[in-house]
Amino acid sequence: MTVHQIVFSRRLRETPFESRAISNGAKAFTIYNHMPLASVYESPQADYAHLCEHVQLWDVSVERQVEVVGADALLLMELITPRDLSKCQVGQCMYAPLVDEEGGIVNDPIVLRLAEDRFWLSIADSDVLLWLRGVAFGRQMDVKVFEPDVHPLAVQGPRSDDLMTKVLGPEVRDIKFFRFIKTTIANTQVLLARSGWSGQGGFEIYLQDRSQGLALWDTIWEAGQEFNIRAGCPNSIERLETGLLSYGSDITLANNPYECGLDRFFKLGKSAEYMSREALEEFASKGVTQKIVHLKLPGDALAPPRSTYPVFNVKGDEVGFVTSMAWSPKFQANLCFAFVAVSETLPANELSIEVEGKRFAGKVCNLGWSES
Amino acid sequence: MTVHQIVFSRRLRETPFESRAISNGAKAFTIYNHMPLASVYESPQADYAHLCEHVQLWDVSVERQVEVVGADALLLMELITPRDLSKCQVGQCMYAPLVDEEGGIVNDPIVLRLAEDRFWLSIADSDVLLWLRGVAFGRQMDVKVFEPDVHPLAVQGPRSDDLMTKVLGPEVRDIKFFRFIKTTIANTQVLLARSGWSGQGGFEIYLQDRSQGLALWDTIWEAGQEFNIRAGCPNSIERLETGLLSYGSDITLANNPYECGLDRFFKLGKSAEYMSREALEEFASKGVTQKIVHLKLPGDALAPPRSTYPVFNVKGDEVGFVTSMAWSPKFQANLCFAFVAVSETLPANELSIEVEGKRFAGKVCNLGWSES
Repeated sequence: MTVHQIVFSRRLRETPFESRAISNGAKAFTIYNHMPLASVYESPQADYAHLCEHVQLWDVSVERQVEVVGADALLLMELITPRDLSKCQVGQCMYAPLVDEEGGIVNDPIVLRLAEDRFWLSIADSDVLLWLRGVAFGRQMDVKVFEPDVHPLAVQGPRSDDLMTKVLGPEVRDIKFFRFIKTTIANTQVLLARSGWSGQGGFEIYLQDRSQGLALWDTIWEAGQEFNIRAGCPNSIERLETGLLSYGSDITLANNPYECGLDRFFKLGKSAEYMSREALEEFASKGVTQKIVHLKLPGDALAPPRSTYPVFNVKGDEVGFVTSMAWSPKFQANLCFAFVAVSETLPANELSIEVEGKRFAGKVCNLGWSES
Repeated sequence: MTVHQIVFSRRLRETPFESRAISNGAKAFTIYNHMPLASVYESPQADYAHLCEHVQLWDVSVERQVEVVGADALLLMELITPRDLSKCQVGQCMYAPLVDEEGGIVNDPIVLRLAEDRFWLSIADSDVLLWLRGVAFGRQMDVKVFEPDVHPLAVQGPRSDDLMTKVLGPEVRDIKFFRFIKTTIANTQVLLARSGWSGQGGFEIYLQDRSQGLALWDTIWEAGQEFNIRAGCPNSIERLETGLLSYGSDITLANNPYECGLDRFFKLGKSAEYMSREALEEFASKGVTQKIVHLKLPGDALAPPRSTYPVFNVKGDEVGFVTSMAWSPKFQANLCFAFVAVSETLPANELSIEVEGKRFAGKVCNLGWSES
């Protein structure tokens, strides 16, 4: 980890839960959508171990919402993604890569359908608000696009259901994956979705009034004491093990969905207009030259890259680069996401990476980290 | 200053000069356009004192460029700002607030006109690239909009002309304010503009090949030894004294140009189409309810706010909020930018701010900080 100091200012927008994150020991932050996000509490390893066994409360206000509402809301939503959003029911969440007219990935939000003509995009780190406002203006669409007063708080970890059952009653156990309900916690209206940026299960609570943030936090926190609750945050070790890509780190505007394996979330040719249709049809027919793979390197923990590490094939040719890396206690290996030439993507293909002048050998294991 | 730790990752994009900023003592950073920007070297006070007397080299790669090129380039550029860009000559820079169809400020870049049909927007902290691509797509404009491989390096301070004369010859003294030339430094092509985010004079050097960043830095650095050059960064004390507003801290999308005093940079009614015309005409005729003022509070240094401090009038009514603050050695006072009700904006109007439960009194001094 490359660690430095950061100075907070109004431009790095304060979250409603920020004082609780700090008082509970947030040691380091990142900036995401112009807002702080804790990245370490005790240590990446200790945070990971606790997350996999207990339950954590995460200030994920940085998952900013973009609200799209009005007569043309569905038209606009369909236009910006190849995924068929007409199939998204009210009360449902859908992961929907946003793809522009050149096939570039603008963001990869979770879309929440609040009503037939009303959506939230729970976004990754880019100003989707500005892009959508630009498109809607250019097309003269009858739609409002704005950032509502909404701030997600995540409950993640294997005890999440027990905790939220204590807070709201047994009906929370019936909420299916990627579905949400409207409810009230600490006397404030929230959406409660079964979702979150880990593979350990849990919920995201969408606070809709920032003045009620601390009351919401404290209510969950109190209820969580018997479950050994801690403050936490998206954890790099857990996300590598679970295989969650991060926009900005693993995926950028320069990438298309086929390179990143995101084509599994859509089928080309939905009936609605979408701006990426031609570009994606061309990528689908011509193929791509590089793809993201899972790359496992046994041995001691290596330092994650500042940006990237180069990747080499058995002949010694540079064939790609690592975008994210963490050492996994579960697999006793360094786990990487890496872009590599398509010819190097077969399972068990041997590749090495270069860290501070030394080469470290590993293997592609796209079918799961437990492949040997 | 609220100081925490930050973890760098690929998403917080590495600058071409980053290793030099760090090796020269950058102590703290902020994140700006998804990229690190140093915010403190020795201390805000020591950095300020050196900047006002000598010359500094600033890694301002975070001033990302958005390139707009093609048959419809001027059409698009005119559409997004009320400023008349037809008057911007090739080789000229213009400060141009970008304003949307509701009158909200999207960004406040410096526009550089590289050719009749080619512009760079040297942007503040928001994804202008996405907004412009959205508008251009929606309008089906014949234009390319992208982020080029360009990374500004600033030379700021009273010895800037002496330093750049040593590097390039006496002709640099003839470059007028907000004009640029094409030249070569350290065998790499650059644009050299007389501009920069301080009131101490200087240049911005637009590197156009990131692989040449360290060579460019080292060439300027070597030449600067006799002028007592140091690495530096935009300095909060200097920018308050000089009166430079910061997008995100002082101005946001929720603000219109009249509130921020940015209407002095344009005259409504240019002949080209601009999307903010109706909204701005309405603000101009109806007036606004709040405005940014300069507010000076004599006495000891107060801690700058995490986000804002409330502002009160002499009757004790809350009438606004501080957006930026720094203690000025020159004026022996805390200097603030603050949004306040229009009725409270007269010069010498008495206002107070609340910091940690205590009130501190000061006066509006819009005609210059030296007003008493």
